[in-house]
Amino acid sequence: MNDNTLAEMVTEMAGRARQAARNLATLSTAAKNTALLTTADLLLSEKEYIQSENSRDLEAGRNKGLSPAMLDRLELSDKVIESMIIGLREVAALPDPVGEVNDMKHLPSGITVGRMRIPLGVVGMIYESRPNVTIDAAALCLKAGNGVLLRGGSEAIHSNLALARILQKGLEAGGIDPDAVQVIPTTDREAVNHMLQLEEYLDVIIPRGGEGLIRFVSQNSRIPVLKHYKGVCHVFVDEDADIDMAVDIIDNGKTQRPGVCNALEGVLIHREISATALPAIAKRLFAKGVELRGCARSCSLVPGIVPAREEDWGTEFLDLILVVRIVDSLDEAMAYIDKHGSNHTETIITSSYPRSQRFLREVDASAVMINASTRFNDGGQFGLGAEIGISTTKLHAYGPMGLEELTTRKFIVYGNGEVRA
Amino acid sequence: MNDNTLAEMVTEMAGRARQAARNLATLSTAAKNTALLTTADLLLSEKEYIQSENSRDLEAGRNKGLSPAMLDRLELSDKVIESMIIGLREVAALPDPVGEVNDMKHLPSGITVGRMRIPLGVVGMIYESRPNVTIDAAALCLKAGNGVLLRGGSEAIHSNLALARILQKGLEAGGIDPDAVQVIPTTDREAVNHMLQLEEYLDVIIPRGGEGLIRFVSQNSRIPVLKHYKGVCHVFVDEDADIDMAVDIIDNGKTQRPGVCNALEGVLIHREISATALPAIAKRLFAKGVELRGCARSCSLVPGIVPAREEDWGTEFLDLILVVRIVDSLDEAMAYIDKHGSNHTETIITSSYPRSQRFLREVDASAVMINASTRFNDGGQFGLGAEIGISTTKLHAYGPMGLEELTTRKFIVYGNGEVRA
Repeated sequence: MNDNTLAEMVTEMAGRARQAARNLATLSTAAKNTALLTTADLLLSEKEYIQSENSRDLEAGRNKGLSPAMLDRLELSDKVIESMIIGLREVAALPDPVGEVNDMKHLPSGITVGRMRIPLGVVGMIYESRPNVTIDAAALCLKAGNGVLLRGGSEAIHSNLALARILQKGLEAGGIDPDAVQVIPTTDREAVNHMLQLEEYLDVIIPRGGEGLIRFVSQNSRIPVLKHYKGVCHVFVDEDADIDMAVDIIDNGKTQRPGVCNALEGVLIHREISATALPAIAKRLFAKGVELRGCARSCSLVPGIVPAREEDWGTEFLDLILVVRIVDSLDEAMAYIDKHGSNHTETIITSSYPRSQRFLREVDASAVMINASTRFNDGGQFGLGAEIGISTTKLHAYGPMGLEELTTRKFIVYGNGEVRA
Repeated sequence: MNDNTLAEMVTEMAGRARQAARNLATLSTAAKNTALLTTADLLLSEKEYIQSENSRDLEAGRNKGLSPAMLDRLELSDKVIESMIIGLREVAALPDPVGEVNDMKHLPSGITVGRMRIPLGVVGMIYESRPNVTIDAAALCLKAGNGVLLRGGSEAIHSNLALARILQKGLEAGGIDPDAVQVIPTTDREAVNHMLQLEEYLDVIIPRGGEGLIRFVSQNSRIPVLKHYKGVCHVFVDEDADIDMAVDIIDNGKTQRPGVCNALEGVLIHREISATALPAIAKRLFAKGVELRGCARSCSLVPGIVPAREEDWGTEFLDLILVVRIVDSLDEAMAYIDKHGSNHTETIITSSYPRSQRFLREVDASAVMINASTRFNDGGQFGLGAEIGISTTKLHAYGPMGLEELTTRKFIVYGNGEVRA
């Protein structure tokens, strides 16, 4: 396909998504839920078709020499399909955010003003290998009343197109225009560039994937981007922390699932408690196979901690590696987090009321916690239901983005003939 | 100044604003209000200095041949200074949005999660001639805990720098780092381009001015932009409208202040009421000197209405010109608004409950009204206090942006040692 044809195709698809989205905004909750639940049923009844399309991607991936980890992420196993089905049913069960009215106020002029929650319009999703994102993202966008144009990884093209067909059948069952959910049917990288220019049709771009993809998208998009660069999360063990609690929270943060963005990457320990806390923390982590890289004071306190290199501070390891540093004060800890953190998740372990409140108020991160594991920064764990990503920038959303973050609010005015004086 | 020096200067200023903003986030409300009220007092006591700097701009403007309207916008008359003083006092009197906590929920895992309102960080304002924006914007940003880097029009450079000095004295009176508010001290257009690249230091760009400025900023910015292109606002007179009410609301929308974005630019009239409504509307508007450009049916119904040209539909006249069109149904009216409106303000005049509710729900605009003048779409009129602009795009804010829209929310978690299962 030449570049003009490609641009036309992407533009035309986005235009159809925009057209379909106009009707989505006023759909009944029942119609949206029918589409979601029918899609869930179809994932089960059409499993053979989905897995045969998926096997084409897997074979191509093996021929291209993809790593076992990447092939694993690509595979639509029975278990992954089951989790997509559960996800769809969960989204169907969530309350519909669209149409909610609040903040109604009667004003001196005589008018009554409030705000009504409405869809954003059309979401452009750009994501890498996992094909289950096709279902998860489409479900959330649809429930929030948005159209969605999906652009998945080239290695998952057949899987994504198969899932799109299932979704479109589900939409039809709900009486909804199937153009509301579309997957771009080409692996040509240029399609992404075209998407990023379509400010007339797309209201927001949500990239999901590695830092390279996210930087590319945010530097080239004319459309607002909701993004999340990386998660460099810390625990600060305050001078009066409960050491057992600190050990549990650090262990959970680092080892429960090291490859995710809310995993722990650094521990700061107050000098006053370091002689007792650090050996206990190191003992637990060494037993779990974690490599500790520390400051000079940490290394001299606990054998087996290796000296950290300058570039280790602030690194997102996504692995069983953790940096540890002894600090002289809460202020030093917060200054370190300000310098090396990524505005994702930061936790203090403390028994001090004033210090807990200073940390909560002064640390700038999408989630700031007292005495809890960083692993809780997640839409489901925060009670939002499913999430479409975690924003680490502040415009529109900061933290996990659920249905509410896929909507906006317009002002509504009830008058009786009032004019402005 | 060569381009490298300019880039360095702008970067260095933004970096200082970022540094100052860190402390702003935790400032007491009293400190911020002291700064605002002291600035108000200084505007009065330093009026001579401000007006002498302003007269340098006015003289340069006259020499450059600026129009009387532009010179008028540039002038810091006693009245304009008085309105800035009132504005500062009003912002000081508004509740402080920072630190507000809500949506606290206790979750099954044992953690308690809520959201705390925090500043955005540093706002980059890019605006055209009116120098009073320097005070109005800085006051709102400061009250919301943000630093602000201001880039005003080149013709107002001396006025803006004088006002910045006053603001910085006010900040010092509140014990606040004066770097929190800075005006870029050059008229070089390239400074804007440099600002738009500083995503590390600036969290949001707010342009205020003509459509050309706004398009330039949004097409060249790496930083999220809160923008408002134009206001093409409509009134739809439904078949059972109260005609006197319709006449008053249309008159107010068009003639009370024709040059602003919430002024009325088009009227749609239901066929069933057109024979009585249109003559009454035309009579009032002709008496006020308004030119009416209409569809063929309108022209044949009322002498004096001139035929509209195709390009008139959807034009922002900002003048005593109005298009009128007779439509066959509510659906036709909403389709017209969808095509020609600008997502700013749309009003229905009706006595019908179901049609009022359909209009309210289905029309996509930052403010949708029943039986009220479009002129009410304004932060003050909506009870938000002062506004920094009106957003007609949907990310982060849609409609008038007050203090709340200059903030965001982070998640806060209270735990007791919980870890993720």
